[in-house]
Amino acid sequence: MHTAAVLYGAKDLRLEEVETPDLQPHEVLIAPRATGICGTDLHYYQNGKNGVFTIHEPLILGHEAAGEVVKIGSAVTNIKTGDRIAVEPQLSCSSCAHCRRGKYNLCAKMRFNGSASASPPAQGSLQKLWAHAAHLCYPLPDNVTFAEGSMVEPLSVALHSVRKANLTAGQSVFIIGAGAIGLLCARVARISGASSIVMADIDDARLNFAKQHGLADKTYRLPLGGQEGGARAEFATRVSSEIQSALSVNRADVAFECTGVESCLNTCIGMANHGSKIVVVGMGQPLQEINLGLALVREIEIVAVWRYTNTFQAAIELISTGMVDVRSLITHKFDMENIRDALEMALSRPADLVKCVLLSE
Amino acid sequence: MHTAAVLYGAKDLRLEEVETPDLQPHEVLIAPRATGICGTDLHYYQNGKNGVFTIHEPLILGHEAAGEVVKIGSAVTNIKTGDRIAVEPQLSCSSCAHCRRGKYNLCAKMRFNGSASASPPAQGSLQKLWAHAAHLCYPLPDNVTFAEGSMVEPLSVALHSVRKANLTAGQSVFIIGAGAIGLLCARVARISGASSIVMADIDDARLNFAKQHGLADKTYRLPLGGQEGGARAEFATRVSSEIQSALSVNRADVAFECTGVESCLNTCIGMANHGSKIVVVGMGQPLQEINLGLALVREIEIVAVWRYTNTFQAAIELISTGMVDVRSLITHKFDMENIRDALEMALSRPADLVKCVLLSE
Amino acid sequence: MHTAAVLYGAKDLRLEEVETPDLQPHEVLIAPRATGICGTDLHYYQNGKNGVFTIHEPLILGHEAAGEVVKIGSAVTNIKTGDRIAVEPQLSCSSCAHCRRGKYNLCAKMRFNGSASASPPAQGSLQKLWAHAAHLCYPLPDNVTFAEGSMVEPLSVALHSVRKANLTAGQSVFIIGAGAIGLLCARVARISGASSIVMADIDDARLNFAKQHGLADKTYRLPLGGQEGGARAEFATRVSSEIQSALSVNRADVAFECTGVESCLNTCIGMANHGSKIVVVGMGQPLQEINLGLALVREIEIVAVWRYTNTFQAAIELISTGMVDVRSLITHKFDMENIRDALEMALSRPADLVKCVLLSE
Amino acid sequence: MHTAAVLYGAKDLRLEEVETPDLQPHEVLIAPRATGICGTDLHYYQNGKNGVFTIHEPLILGHEAAGEVVKIGSAVTNIKTGDRIAVEPQLSCSSCAHCRRGKYNLCAKMRFNGSASASPPAQGSLQKLWAHAAHLCYPLPDNVTFAEGSMVEPLSVALHSVRKANLTAGQSVFIIGAGAIGLLCARVARISGASSIVMADIDDARLNFAKQHGLADKTYRLPLGGQEGGARAEFATRVSSEIQSALSVNRADVAFECTGVESCLNTCIGMANHGSKIVVVGMGQPLQEINLGLALVREIEIVAVWRYTNTFQAAIELISTGMVDVRSLITHKFDMENIRDALEMALSRPADLVKCVLLSE
Repeated sequence: MHTAAVLYGAKDLRLEEVETPDLQPHEVLIAPRATGICGTDLHYYQNGKNGVFTIHEPLILGHEAAGEVVKIGSAVTNIKTGDRIAVEPQLSCSSCAHCRRGKYNLCAKMRFNGSASASPPAQGSLQKLWAHAAHLCYPLPDNVTFAEGSMVEPLSVALHSVRKANLTAGQSVFIIGAGAIGLLCARVARISGASSIVMADIDDARLNFAKQHGLADKTYRLPLGGQEGGARAEFATRVSSEIQSALSVNRADVAFECTGVESCLNTCIGMANHGSKIVVVGMGQPLQEINLGLALVREIEIVAVWRYTNTFQAAIELISTGMVDVRSLITHKFDMENIRDALEMALSRPADLVKCVLLSE
Repeated sequence: MHTAAVLYGAKDLRLEEVETPDLQPHEVLIAPRATGICGTDLHYYQNGKNGVFTIHEPLILGHEAAGEVVKIGSAVTNIKTGDRIAVEPQLSCSSCAHCRRGKYNLCAKMRFNGSASASPPAQGSLQKLWAHAAHLCYPLPDNVTFAEGSMVEPLSVALHSVRKANLTAGQSVFIIGAGAIGLLCARVARISGASSIVMADIDDARLNFAKQHGLADKTYRLPLGGQEGGARAEFATRVSSEIQSALSVNRADVAFECTGVESCLNTCIGMANHGSKIVVVGMGQPLQEINLGLALVREIEIVAVWRYTNTFQAAIELISTGMVDVRSLITHKFDMENIRDALEMALSRPADLVKCVLLSE
Repeated sequence: MHTAAVLYGAKDLRLEEVETPDLQPHEVLIAPRATGICGTDLHYYQNGKNGVFTIHEPLILGHEAAGEVVKIGSAVTNIKTGDRIAVEPQLSCSSCAHCRRGKYNLCAKMRFNGSASASPPAQGSLQKLWAHAAHLCYPLPDNVTFAEGSMVEPLSVALHSVRKANLTAGQSVFIIGAGAIGLLCARVARISGASSIVMADIDDARLNFAKQHGLADKTYRLPLGGQEGGARAEFATRVSSEIQSALSVNRADVAFECTGVESCLNTCIGMANHGSKIVVVGMGQPLQEINLGLALVREIEIVAVWRYTNTFQAAIELISTGMVDVRSLITHKFDMENIRDALEMALSRPADLVKCVLLSE
Repeated sequence: MHTAAVLYGAKDLRLEEVETPDLQPHEVLIAPRATGICGTDLHYYQNGKNGVFTIHEPLILGHEAAGEVVKIGSAVTNIKTGDRIAVEPQLSCSSCAHCRRGKYNLCAKMRFNGSASASPPAQGSLQKLWAHAAHLCYPLPDNVTFAEGSMVEPLSVALHSVRKANLTAGQSVFIIGAGAIGLLCARVARISGASSIVMADIDDARLNFAKQHGLADKTYRLPLGGQEGGARAEFATRVSSEIQSALSVNRADVAFECTGVESCLNTCIGMANHGSKIVVVGMGQPLQEINLGLALVREIEIVAVWRYTNTFQAAIELISTGMVDVRSLITHKFDMENIRDALEMALSRPADLVKCVLLSE
């Protein structure tokens, strides 16, 4: 038995004792030390559901995790007790066509930790002990802290997104949405060669953060109209023109949509050069009215991304070498015991919040 | 002076004498022998405009053309008088960044023949004599007729579209829209390795044509609701489920949208496998309400195509070797003098019309 | 206990009783019905070794196999008893970085059946009962025979090779080596869009076979000098010039090297267009003196291929739909009991041999 | 008439008056301000030839150039008098199949400046006035000096090479050869995401330069044997093992061969991970004995590069933003009048020479 933060439904989070599972031969038992909170965690906590997935069985959240290995299964060879690790939270079947061709993020049998998408759910890291497949555990170098290790997962989203963009050195990038993922996309785009990065958001504090940390070269505060519907595509086209004239920039070689908002995707289309790619990272309303006509005459590719594959080792390298500074994005820390406080704080959306991490000794 | 079919506005087509231009050093003078009629020609003829482009100056239509070279400019070396040629109707600047990287279809200075997009317009092939850049003229082998040569242009659209799909042998394909472009996409997909091709359309005659000519393995007649709006995305999702169950097929590795209709693009999303590509060939309403949520969880790439690049030589090979039979798609032929009859016939949309070609001796 | 053809060393092949292994939960027990013989089998039989791999433990050959499932393990869901299947003979670890990114053919823990590369060896299909991982078994449609099913493996090599070539419709192909793999590459290249296929070989019978079966458009019988060294690269350059002039062909957009012979790779470089790819399928002497200078000024990519990945399902589709006719390549059949006769026949290299398949009821 | 440094043959360099050509409509007249010297210049100067190209007509060297526009042709719109520019020295035909698909570096009619490859040669920048195609002139931002501008050309080689590598963030890189091109490849690889860069060379001074300027993370001084032949491939395999053990590094995801030496290419094969790419930048002996066997089992792609395409604008961005510091690579400067001294100095190969630039006011 060990303590876990179990979510039974909207706002019904209980710290209680749960059964410690028997360790399978290819599993390790982990003591989670750091867990980041992301938007989907907040959806589950606030509403008892995230998109189409509703909590029907008790759910332990936590998929941005780093920890310490306390025990290894009989067949484990890549990890040893005492290892400090980052944890990839997506266990796929490894034998279907998607897994076999390297797109295991698309596996129909995916068990994603801390999510109600599977039944019974694959439980997450917000507990004292956590059994996980050994091959999804990646040792952390000494110079990477547990808190930084918990950032490997969101960094993976950005890395996967930038890989999809086929960015090359000297290209220009436009990013809409300056939350944690947008900021990480900016950083990964920079170290992947972007010589010009423009970020847009409705929030001045976020844009200031981006500029102060050298993540964006130029920023633009978006007007609010587009989010509320109204003129829609025309609004977005006008906004993209204003961005170009206000910032004296040309259209971008690659655009990243990191908000999930319809008008923001249309702004990306307006900001995207002929023959460019728009990587859609943000997830919002399923149905969006898109300026497809403009995308066609510009021969733009609209590339959807879903989570990530094969990113953890590379992401750890990027943190360890200092190429990506994730530490500055961790603006809030709480002890794991105070998880409810952390979630409520995050729900209140303070201006200075980028990433909140829960720590445990 | 020579005779041309000059369009002055909606339905105002006049066969009249026009000035024969002086031949520039890198140009050839062509006697057009065959010109195909496509949807954009019909838009200009019926409405005096095509999308955002309105006829302000007299316009000579014709961009699907083959002919005979009657004179060559002083600097021409790749073509000689008497050559039978297919004509690529897009003259780009050849020195801008798009042209230099091989995406000359995106050139801002593009002069597309038979279109009101430039001013003065780049005139088309519906005239007795036609001056054109020599490097855009491709000799036809003896076994390719002028009528077949006029099909090189629409075949180019299909070839460009299939190239964008990165199709490999043994993959499955879904095509919505069984007009000339959809049928050509089907054929190019087949010879590019597609082992299963499903076509859908609202028109039984077109689907029968596709099956009789071995272009589709299975066909599905679409219900009409989606075109009229209504349930929209839900409609498309239901249709795609019905296609799968009615035809006993799985979702496709690649989908081609060849209608320009919103519900058809959503049907493509419903019919597209995880990790697949949807190539958007059809152009319709600029704003379309897309099921982006489904595209995201399936990590689908939505690839817009705009005309074509570097297709003519390859397309001629495909016709000459018999790999693509374009002859059977030419369902209607008219003498060039009877162009008005041809356009009116095409506007009446007879059930058996795939492609109408105007011939001239 | 069941009967197996066990190879103890050079020419020391014994039909004897071996232990039938206990079936693991994810395994199936197969009664092999057809097994093709390939060059590596002959190397093991004749020399007791294949390249760097020597037989140290008794080895059961057979990696081109189809059979019938006679029993399934407790966890198997994708296959049922009685299924007719083709068998992918490469069991990888499925959790290393190579496996995870879809390049499982490069897995360091690969257990390839019928090969002495692992210890103990992963035994092959030349036995009455054969246990194998269920996820590597692919059901055969009713219209695909066991003999054809045994061709899925060599067809996989060709399919993998052509995928690496990024061939598009209307391109030209040069293939050197008209053995089973070269012929299959020709066929897969054709159905992937190649509009011109030139094949070269030192053997007239093979070239005739290629022409008679429509696999090559033009053929060229190679002179023998290059194989013996001598002028080497100069020889190859001269040969490639002679091919172009004798056959009136241009250099190719893609070349396939299917012999493993140094002068043939250099002939490919001579026959390859600027900006083209040469796919190296054949394996011969490790050290080869390559005309790198010519490859550089033509900016050619030399793409090595190693076995295949994710090919079996697609290859079965290609056979089932008739797009690839493998039946005509099976020029010799033997009963499994007469395996020694089959191997000796194959070693004698009769002019009409393309593929020999061993059958078992 | 204006002064030019005209090379008549080996060591026969004359500063003399030459005819100033009439300016064509699409040309500009340039006053070259900075010209870098590279290895091919030295070959022409020392031997009167470079590879297969011999000086038959007087040749003006200089293809790494920046200058000031003093006059523009009647049709020029992208450049104006007084502009400070970097000059792309490759004028292609712009209408052949290679040019049209964006691979204009492969144009058969290429006129490369300062090279004896065309007849009459396309003269280079080592003269007081130089006429050149306007579309190959790229304005320099104010913060880029002429000397830095002359580095855009060698940086282009590196940028083209790294683009070919499809590098993504967090990958490891091995570079053999720490001359100007190798060092630039290192820098472009770093800003394209390489998290680990190992450089090897026979020269300690070069390796120290690489480390001191942060271009390499680890360096290895190569033993001399391989350059002299001898054990050849075995030597290279042993060296690559020693590099891995001495530096505690794994094999690399991408390798760059920047020497043109056979044993160095084989060392790259030894140092390259399974499924990786080796980009061959260096040009040396045409025939090289390659460890193809090792490349095959590792499924390595050997990617030749020839000059560059579409790099100048991006390279200028990289210099202007400070992402690539080219200033520190310019270790030697001479006045253009002292060109002979500069060439003799460069021929003496001083230990501290990376790049020598000739300046002119």
